[in-house]
Amino acid sequence: MDFTSFAGFVCGIIMIASAIISGGNVDSFVSVPGMMIVCAGTLSATFLTFQFRDVIAALKAAYLVFTHKKQDPNDVLATMIQLCDKSRRQGLLELEKVTTRKRFLKKACMLIADGSSESVIREALRTEIDSLKLRHFVVQDVFRKMGLYAPAFGMLGTLIGLVQMLSKLNDPTLIGPAMAIALLTTFYGSILSTMLFLPIAGKLKGRTILQVINLEIMFEGAISILQNSNAVVVYEKLSSFIPARNRRPLDEMRVE
Amino acid sequence: MDFTSFAGFVCGIIMIASAIISGGNVDSFVSVPGMMIVCAGTLSATFLTFQFRDVIAALKAAYLVFTHKKQDPNDVLATMIQLCDKSRRQGLLELEKVTTRKRFLKKACMLIADGSSESVIREALRTEIDSLKLRHFVVQDVFRKMGLYAPAFGMLGTLIGLVQMLSKLNDPTLIGPAMAIALLTTFYGSILSTMLFLPIAGKLKGRTILQVINLEIMFEGAISILQNSNAVVVYEKLSSFIPARNRRPLDEMRVE
Amino acid sequence: MDFTSFAGFVCGIIMIASAIISGGNVDSFVSVPGMMIVCAGTLSATFLTFQFRDVIAALKAAYLVFTHKKQDPNDVLATMIQLCDKSRRQGLLELEKVTTRKRFLKKACMLIADGSSESVIREALRTEIDSLKLRHFVVQDVFRKMGLYAPAFGMLGTLIGLVQMLSKLNDPTLIGPAMAIALLTTFYGSILSTMLFLPIAGKLKGRTILQVINLEIMFEGAISILQNSNAVVVYEKLSSFIPARNRRPLDEMRVE
Amino acid sequence: MDFTSFAGFVCGIIMIASAIISGGNVDSFVSVPGMMIVCAGTLSATFLTFQFRDVIAALKAAYLVFTHKKQDPNDVLATMIQLCDKSRRQGLLELEKVTTRKRFLKKACMLIADGSSESVIREALRTEIDSLKLRHFVVQDVFRKMGLYAPAFGMLGTLIGLVQMLSKLNDPTLIGPAMAIALLTTFYGSILSTMLFLPIAGKLKGRTILQVINLEIMFEGAISILQNSNAVVVYEKLSSFIPARNRRPLDEMRVE
Amino acid sequence: MDFTSFAGFVCGIIMIASAIISGGNVDSFVSVPGMMIVCAGTLSATFLTFQFRDVIAALKAAYLVFTHKKQDPNDVLATMIQLCDKSRRQGLLELEKVTTRKRFLKKACMLIADGSSESVIREALRTEIDSLKLRHFVVQDVFRKMGLYAPAFGMLGTLIGLVQMLSKLNDPTLIGPAMAIALLTTFYGSILSTMLFLPIAGKLKGRTILQVINLEIMFEGAISILQNSNAVVVYEKLSSFIPARNRRPLDEMRVE
Repeated sequence: MDFTSFAGFVCGIIMIASAIISGGNVDSFVSVPGMMIVCAGTLSATFLTFQFRDVIAALKAAYLVFTHKKQDPNDVLATMIQLCDKSRRQGLLELEKVTTRKRFLKKACMLIADGSSESVIREALRTEIDSLKLRHFVVQDVFRKMGLYAPAFGMLGTLIGLVQMLSKLNDPTLIGPAMAIALLTTFYGSILSTMLFLPIAGKLKGRTILQVINLEIMFEGAISILQNSNAVVVYEKLSSFIPARNRRPLDEMRVE
Repeated sequence: MDFTSFAGFVCGIIMIASAIISGGNVDSFVSVPGMMIVCAGTLSATFLTFQFRDVIAALKAAYLVFTHKKQDPNDVLATMIQLCDKSRRQGLLELEKVTTRKRFLKKACMLIADGSSESVIREALRTEIDSLKLRHFVVQDVFRKMGLYAPAFGMLGTLIGLVQMLSKLNDPTLIGPAMAIALLTTFYGSILSTMLFLPIAGKLKGRTILQVINLEIMFEGAISILQNSNAVVVYEKLSSFIPARNRRPLDEMRVE
Repeated sequence: MDFTSFAGFVCGIIMIASAIISGGNVDSFVSVPGMMIVCAGTLSATFLTFQFRDVIAALKAAYLVFTHKKQDPNDVLATMIQLCDKSRRQGLLELEKVTTRKRFLKKACMLIADGSSESVIREALRTEIDSLKLRHFVVQDVFRKMGLYAPAFGMLGTLIGLVQMLSKLNDPTLIGPAMAIALLTTFYGSILSTMLFLPIAGKLKGRTILQVINLEIMFEGAISILQNSNAVVVYEKLSSFIPARNRRPLDEMRVE
Repeated sequence: MDFTSFAGFVCGIIMIASAIISGGNVDSFVSVPGMMIVCAGTLSATFLTFQFRDVIAALKAAYLVFTHKKQDPNDVLATMIQLCDKSRRQGLLELEKVTTRKRFLKKACMLIADGSSESVIREALRTEIDSLKLRHFVVQDVFRKMGLYAPAFGMLGTLIGLVQMLSKLNDPTLIGPAMAIALLTTFYGSILSTMLFLPIAGKLKGRTILQVINLEIMFEGAISILQNSNAVVVYEKLSSFIPARNRRPLDEMRVE
Repeated sequence: MDFTSFAGFVCGIIMIASAIISGGNVDSFVSVPGMMIVCAGTLSATFLTFQFRDVIAALKAAYLVFTHKKQDPNDVLATMIQLCDKSRRQGLLELEKVTTRKRFLKKACMLIADGSSESVIREALRTEIDSLKLRHFVVQDVFRKMGLYAPAFGMLGTLIGLVQMLSKLNDPTLIGPAMAIALLTTFYGSILSTMLFLPIAGKLKGRTILQVINLEIMFEGAISILQNSNAVVVYEKLSSFIPARNRRPLDEMRVE
């Protein structure tokens, strides 16, 4: 569980809630029809914009990003160093027996063990990375678009409220409360966008960057193994992906 | 028929309609001149911005994207695997007899069967893909621009209404209803943009991404066939375009 | 004359005019000082932003795009096919005698007939295309910037009107008409931007795309002629620039 | 002196001034504290955003762009043609004696005369061009950011004025004038951004494009001289950077 | 300590403070709940958007950029020239003994002394530069997003205030002060964004550009050393990264 995200979210909600509660009447901030317009409108425009499958994938990705731990590039690098040592001692064919839950690494090992040419391996793995980037981009885009649609429907709701209020403007003393209700949808739309959709889109983008770095380490590692480089060279090349400050030394990686 | 899009759209419309109806007088949301300004204005600016042909192509594409099923990349991959097996057994000349409704694949087969050099085939097919991307971009742009023009004309209509109202401001009790009518064009413009034009532009973009992936599979497949690669290598290279989760295994593809 | 553009423009103007007229007093929409602020301000900022020469070029390009017919890529392709046939029959030197109003094609023919090396021809022609793209981009940018400046000066005019009105606010009954006049500049700025400047920028962009495609066909065609390719190969390569639907068959092109 | 820029600027200022004067009391448009907030705020945020040196460089560039004549690419091309003729007649060593105020050309000549390899010359000159582009981009960015900060501080000033006015709202008849003063900062911010900062940023961008073209002509020319191309080939290659309409013929260039 | 930044910031704050104080009651600009909403909201959304580690890195980078002196590219160039002279006199192995606090230069020296091939060195160092760019981009993005979130929470706070005020609108004389308080959060959000977050993001971007130039000089220098170029050639190539005006002559660099 991503603790700081959770703490951040809860803290923000408490802040806004306390601002509302301190004002006295909480009722004036609840409008079920207003919530319906913003939520249903945002969802409907989202389903119209994207494939059904992409929206589901986006919701799933958002769930995973907050519950799954991100992978340390040092671990990936250690794995590649160990595979490199192994393949130099026991031959490239040994890579076929590698068991890993990472589909990309599995595919890389299979291709090397099958004796594919370097250009085929490069192309196949590069396409995998590009496809993943594209899919992740679509997933982030779902939340980015929701972050656009929510305020738009908030404004639409406010426009509806304003037109209803203005078209039967007999009693001026009623303007205030009617206007308050009309503004609520704008409030809902803004809060959904700023506190939920846009941050999730940002979080997913950050996670994609990390995942692509891990894939790049595997990619370059696989090519180095194929070229029969020794572990020191592999370490020099791959460790460049990791900030110098966080880099684990080569010795620790081999011991593991 | 794209069901979820349809359901999303209907659901959104119902939501907004019920919000309007629940407010009592539906009449105050109908303004034929206002609708005219927004719709005619948006169309006129669109025709001024684009070629007539491009606007028609965009409307056609929007119709097709909601009625035509999208093509599964796995099927395209299966076709390429089968062509690969065939050409290895019966020779490249056999590709001339291939019958397919896909113009791109047909052209690729013709070029290979004609004995064109790899560089000519690469260039011709790459240009085809780039041209398609460019054409699709223009088509999406039509709807994106409509999504910009609609709110702009909504605001213009509101400005007209405001000027008319303010210039003869004798009776303050009439401000309300006049203002309500003036706001209606903004409402129309926003709803057209948020519920229709922008989602369609997004949907078209998603469909283009899918179609380009299919073309890339055919492109790489054609090159592999020309290089006389065997089906396993072709499968390894081309399957990278498809997310690992959805990938159909090689065996199923050859049986077909 | 580009009919649909004209029809679109007239139709949009009529729509807005009728909305204004139906409101009764047309006088309240005319403010000569307001028009002056928006028009003179936009022009002055445009001349400050761009070179004098670029603004003139932009106005000229806008005139040409609505009066000149665009060139069918099929015709360009046909010309290249015929040049290819000719040069294969009569030798590359014959290209020197080609008479054409297209400066790019003329230059390509001259370079080939002069016996320049392929790399020199490639570089010279590629630079021509890039220079044209750059020049056209500047021209579109003039109108795009005008589309930004017009609403900005509209808002400036409204601010001036508001400050004048508010600073001598003695008689509340005069707020309405004064406010109406202040809003007029915003109206002028928006209408100029939405109905004129942005659509023209879009139209110019579309025309540039088309023109670049024609140049690319000439470029690839010239290279093919230099490489002594036969007409069938040239057709296969160059026809990829044209959507399959609109492509004219090779036979028609040679007959011509 | 760049006359049209000056005329444009003066004309725009006169327009706005006359609109203000025609409204009667000019005093209501002068607010020294308001001007202070906008100007000092914009400058302070600019110095916070950029290095001190970059801001100074930007002011200097803005001064130069309006006072210095821009260089005609035809002259640069003529210089390169003459150098080419000279080096072919008298040898590459003669280039060392070339005296020119253009540092880029001087460096190119020195490198050639020193007998550096083509790859070293290419790299060194390409890096020069890229560095210049980067520096010019920063300079333009200074004015672009000022064009963003000015309206932002205008709005901040208006917010301060509104809060002050609203918090002591006893006499409703004073709302008007107080509101007018509050709006003034928005007016100042907008006018600075639209009439000054954004156009200067645009002008600098245009000048950079021109300067890069001149450098590209020198770059390609230097490479051609190194490759001992004759003047005709050099002219064919380099003249592509200049629009066909403005191109000076080769003969005129050699005579000079 | 970066003096001009500090002076700019202080000057801007004084300007705004004096505008507030001159208006009389400073109290009306202080609203602790309003500050809480904007600050806590912005922080909570930021922590939700980014990894905890990235936010901390961003705060640290912002502190460093204002306290650390930036490095003069001339010094980096001088170092590379001296290393070049040394390696030519004493051999590449001497580079191992180089002591420097620059991790990038240390790594470059180690790789050269280890006898790695040029392609391995190029790849490893290029990846280092790209990783640094990516990390710095994320760090700038933290402040850019804070610059977006702060005004958004300002507006949210104002919406809350407006709804509270409007929903209990009995006494019209209270509108003013309540509205003033509601506007305060917008004021806080704007001032944080314009005076703090956006300028810091800009400053960090400028510092990154400088740092990348220094790394590029080291990169190209290391490659030149490996290729055994002499100091003059190295100087010609590397000095192109520095504007001609600021370039230190080669003699001064060797003396050091």
